[in-house]
Amino acid sequence: MGSHSLSDRGPFRHIGIMGKPRNPEAAETINVLQDLLLEKGFRVSLETGVGEGLVREPAKLANWRAIGEECDLIIVIGGDGSMIYAGRQLADFDVPMLGINRGYLGFLTDVQPTQTREKVTEILAGDYLEEERFLLHAGVSKEDQTLHESDAFNDIVLYPGEISRMIEFEVFIDGAFVYSQRGDGLIISTPTGSTAYSLSAGGPILSPGLDAISLVPLCPHTLSSRPIVVAADRKIEIVFADTNQYDAQLSCDGQVRLPVQPGESIRIFRKDHSLRLLHPKDYDYFRLLRTKLGWGSKL
Amino acid sequence: MGSHSLSDRGPFRHIGIMGKPRNPEAAETINVLQDLLLEKGFRVSLETGVGEGLVREPAKLANWRAIGEECDLIIVIGGDGSMIYAGRQLADFDVPMLGINRGYLGFLTDVQPTQTREKVTEILAGDYLEEERFLLHAGVSKEDQTLHESDAFNDIVLYPGEISRMIEFEVFIDGAFVYSQRGDGLIISTPTGSTAYSLSAGGPILSPGLDAISLVPLCPHTLSSRPIVVAADRKIEIVFADTNQYDAQLSCDGQVRLPVQPGESIRIFRKDHSLRLLHPKDYDYFRLLRTKLGWGSKL
Amino acid sequence: MGSHSLSDRGPFRHIGIMGKPRNPEAAETINVLQDLLLEKGFRVSLETGVGEGLVREPAKLANWRAIGEECDLIIVIGGDGSMIYAGRQLADFDVPMLGINRGYLGFLTDVQPTQTREKVTEILAGDYLEEERFLLHAGVSKEDQTLHESDAFNDIVLYPGEISRMIEFEVFIDGAFVYSQRGDGLIISTPTGSTAYSLSAGGPILSPGLDAISLVPLCPHTLSSRPIVVAADRKIEIVFADTNQYDAQLSCDGQVRLPVQPGESIRIFRKDHSLRLLHPKDYDYFRLLRTKLGWGSKL
Amino acid sequence: MGSHSLSDRGPFRHIGIMGKPRNPEAAETINVLQDLLLEKGFRVSLETGVGEGLVREPAKLANWRAIGEECDLIIVIGGDGSMIYAGRQLADFDVPMLGINRGYLGFLTDVQPTQTREKVTEILAGDYLEEERFLLHAGVSKEDQTLHESDAFNDIVLYPGEISRMIEFEVFIDGAFVYSQRGDGLIISTPTGSTAYSLSAGGPILSPGLDAISLVPLCPHTLSSRPIVVAADRKIEIVFADTNQYDAQLSCDGQVRLPVQPGESIRIFRKDHSLRLLHPKDYDYFRLLRTKLGWGSKL
Repeated sequence: MGSHSLSDRGPFRHIGIMGKPRNPEAAETINVLQDLLLEKGFRVSLETGVGEGLVREPAKLANWRAIGEECDLIIVIGGDGSMIYAGRQLADFDVPMLGINRGYLGFLTDVQPTQTREKVTEILAGDYLEEERFLLHAGVSKEDQTLHESDAFNDIVLYPGEISRMIEFEVFIDGAFVYSQRGDGLIISTPTGSTAYSLSAGGPILSPGLDAISLVPLCPHTLSSRPIVVAADRKIEIVFADTNQYDAQLSCDGQVRLPVQPGESIRIFRKDHSLRLLHPKDYDYFRLLRTKLGWGSKL
Repeated sequence: MGSHSLSDRGPFRHIGIMGKPRNPEAAETINVLQDLLLEKGFRVSLETGVGEGLVREPAKLANWRAIGEECDLIIVIGGDGSMIYAGRQLADFDVPMLGINRGYLGFLTDVQPTQTREKVTEILAGDYLEEERFLLHAGVSKEDQTLHESDAFNDIVLYPGEISRMIEFEVFIDGAFVYSQRGDGLIISTPTGSTAYSLSAGGPILSPGLDAISLVPLCPHTLSSRPIVVAADRKIEIVFADTNQYDAQLSCDGQVRLPVQPGESIRIFRKDHSLRLLHPKDYDYFRLLRTKLGWGSKL
Repeated sequence: MGSHSLSDRGPFRHIGIMGKPRNPEAAETINVLQDLLLEKGFRVSLETGVGEGLVREPAKLANWRAIGEECDLIIVIGGDGSMIYAGRQLADFDVPMLGINRGYLGFLTDVQPTQTREKVTEILAGDYLEEERFLLHAGVSKEDQTLHESDAFNDIVLYPGEISRMIEFEVFIDGAFVYSQRGDGLIISTPTGSTAYSLSAGGPILSPGLDAISLVPLCPHTLSSRPIVVAADRKIEIVFADTNQYDAQLSCDGQVRLPVQPGESIRIFRKDHSLRLLHPKDYDYFRLLRTKLGWGSKL
Repeated sequence: MGSHSLSDRGPFRHIGIMGKPRNPEAAETINVLQDLLLEKGFRVSLETGVGEGLVREPAKLANWRAIGEECDLIIVIGGDGSMIYAGRQLADFDVPMLGINRGYLGFLTDVQPTQTREKVTEILAGDYLEEERFLLHAGVSKEDQTLHESDAFNDIVLYPGEISRMIEFEVFIDGAFVYSQRGDGLIISTPTGSTAYSLSAGGPILSPGLDAISLVPLCPHTLSSRPIVVAADRKIEIVFADTNQYDAQLSCDGQVRLPVQPGESIRIFRKDHSLRLLHPKDYDYFRLLRTKLGWGSKL
């Protein structure tokens, strides 16, 4: 995690605002933020979905693609879900993101709303920590033809579709057969996602800077199945067996769902572009973890 | 994992033999191996403890230090325990190791005794896979003075000494406070150790090539405690709290035990020297895992 | 578990045969069994679905209801799934059941097909062990009006319907509030079901004779959630919260599915009628468990 | 759980006080309690260890045996540890116990110190809930001769003695072989103990009224090992294998430790006498559980 401390103007000119749409609390923070940014002379774009009705001259509305192309900092107001949504869309643009929390206490939105002015001012002045978080890409294919694809910031989950509870699949890593499994499915998680659904399923916490992916089985029929952690540059393939009688689904961050039919394959690899997350200087990942999980403080 | 294929003489001249002492089955394989090596004109040294009474002219007995200094390949006959014992001693010498299994089916001794002649011949000809496995170093210190230290190939375990069951400690990573914990202790595991004790304690499997360490709590009092995986270059410190009424112990691979008193600290980091493991060309880590853990084969 | 040893004719007159329909292996065993029973002078009824095309004079076809009413022993040929299916339908009739295995090695169908003549002959002579296994009843209701209901021999599972992954619900035992939970759902399991889906989800094994029910959470958001075991005569209520945006489903043994809408309640209690299972005299529950789970045999 | 509501004098005459010795906070509550009891005209005995220096005329000091024989209610001031200690000693006397909490928030000491006067007054008037909690008896024997024995209120734990980490043992239930296991040991827990050490080891919560015992393995080498729950009247035998090279220990409630040598057997069964626990009328087990474990409150 790099640390920046620029004393003058700072590195940013044009700030994009995204977040939870139609939410009164998020709207309140968007207003505070807009005022602060305009007052300081920044150019400001509000994402159309969230900014409609809130935009103040001379800020303007823009779609997420324009925001990704034009802005040099994106501030997301919402919960981890909003951040993940924005991150998945903006990963290709190499723009840093900052989150202001207006949801459950999150792992990604680490500025509290009451601190908006103070923390954002510091960050605009170039006083922040920056870290990279990678994303995964998943493609569903049949006979080497890609049928559906999407990205994931947290996790990719293979699970039963509407009817059946138990699915069967084979897992390969860099082409080497790992195991076949029957069960409720499989989670492929980034370090970012390792404190989300994966944790509920018994997966390990991967430290944010770790260049690794975890494979966490969901209620596996084989009782000796265990989470496996592999280097992030390995290619993972899941073959959804011909023997399944019903379709499965592939969820990306719980926000995008792709259909998977018996005989189809899922290929998962790390995206080339990582996401740049900004944090206030006093950011402390383990403090966040202790608070969220109720872990013991100093003796 | 690198692959070597030299057609002629191969890279080795002087072979060291180590392994399980006073074990009739290991002795049988040592004899087969000695004959093979001498017949092919290699120089051979048997480690004193294991070779006493077995050595055949012109092979000679030598202590492990001489073996580390003089040999350019070490073959260990025994189980994973023998391999770990040898590995911890030889890590500083940069000599590659090969294991022939004469114990429980292991993860490290992947040549079966019936295949000794065939597989060793291939490997001596330079036809093998080579991989690196890192070790950990642990030091117990008080007020920055190191009191005891050792290395570990599998894992370092903090656990209660003779009397008390519950111990209290704080964990720091690169100086940042992670949590305090009460419980039966903590396992710090390498990828190699992740399929040993750590796995029984609920830890994840770390793929052998992964540059990471896992921290796995033993029966933690805080139910939301979970295994954490961090990059292998991070420094881990465990402070064994002043509040403990009894001593703890620090086990390295279950083979070396260091005493730890209330108020002392344990510092753990990756050793600079890694161990070079050789495998036959048909080595398949996941096949080993499937066999050992009873995982499902292809559908 | 009671033991019977009658030397003469035995307690049975009219035998019902049920099982896996349209399965060549099951059909083979049905023929062996039919021959044996007719040769010994028993009256024989084949369940219509499974017996069509197989019935031999003077055996007759009958639906499951007639079988439940007329027979004094029912033999099921198939896997645990067939046994559970038959058990759920016949629980009200107080007829003992015996299983002959023609599926995966099961917990309920403990006569192997090659032993059919030998073991069935013994049992018909009154030489068997008998045990009781209770069933659960589940009713989905709104404002005290029951909308859907069913029985379960293994387990009752609340889980998300088509769209959402995370559901919210409250659990009550004998009217006392236990907890609210967000997650993938909840398994309510009998001892019989404790070695099925519940085991994959981290639930404990309940010994078959134990008069208890387990509540096992599926990927609970609260990491300190744990399986709870309560006496079998306690009433369990799950309130599927109003706050859910999508429907859930209630699965009984994975064979019957009932819809659950936000604001509806699920009430679960033990059925009055238990199922009577017959086993050969050499039946050994823990041997079965050791074989199925790969547990260690005697040292 | 029975409910009592006597309006007049109440069922008690002579109250025994036990608890945490040499603890200023416990002493404070003992004084409040003594004053209350003497003022109301009860006879009062303080256990010698805890009451030395605190006793007020006409209360008297007595050893625990005299307290068990003479008193008709025992009030314990301390944490769960004090309650368990008292319970193990007094189980044979059939005297009800009440706990006032002066330790960590406990499961057994459910009167808070600030409520001492109010709650104790109610209970003395006969206004309380009463429940039974059973204890276990463990005997270590060799060739059918008992060498050591003790009782346990929470749990009996077999674990390695000083030197070795891994022990081997066989488990039998009512004489039937269950499994052999290598690992860190085994917990045999009552429902009372199921929220203590057993819970940290992955065991299920057994509802207090459940007549059952759980067997929870500690870091078992066999990954498919799982907690098993059996009826409380079953006899459990653990054979500490001849193949172990070092001694083991048997802990009763973590307070009594018995040595176990290779080849010795441990027999565990429910004690005939149960403990009678009194609670204030507003006692709510699941509320306690929610508070202790941080579970979700009503939606």
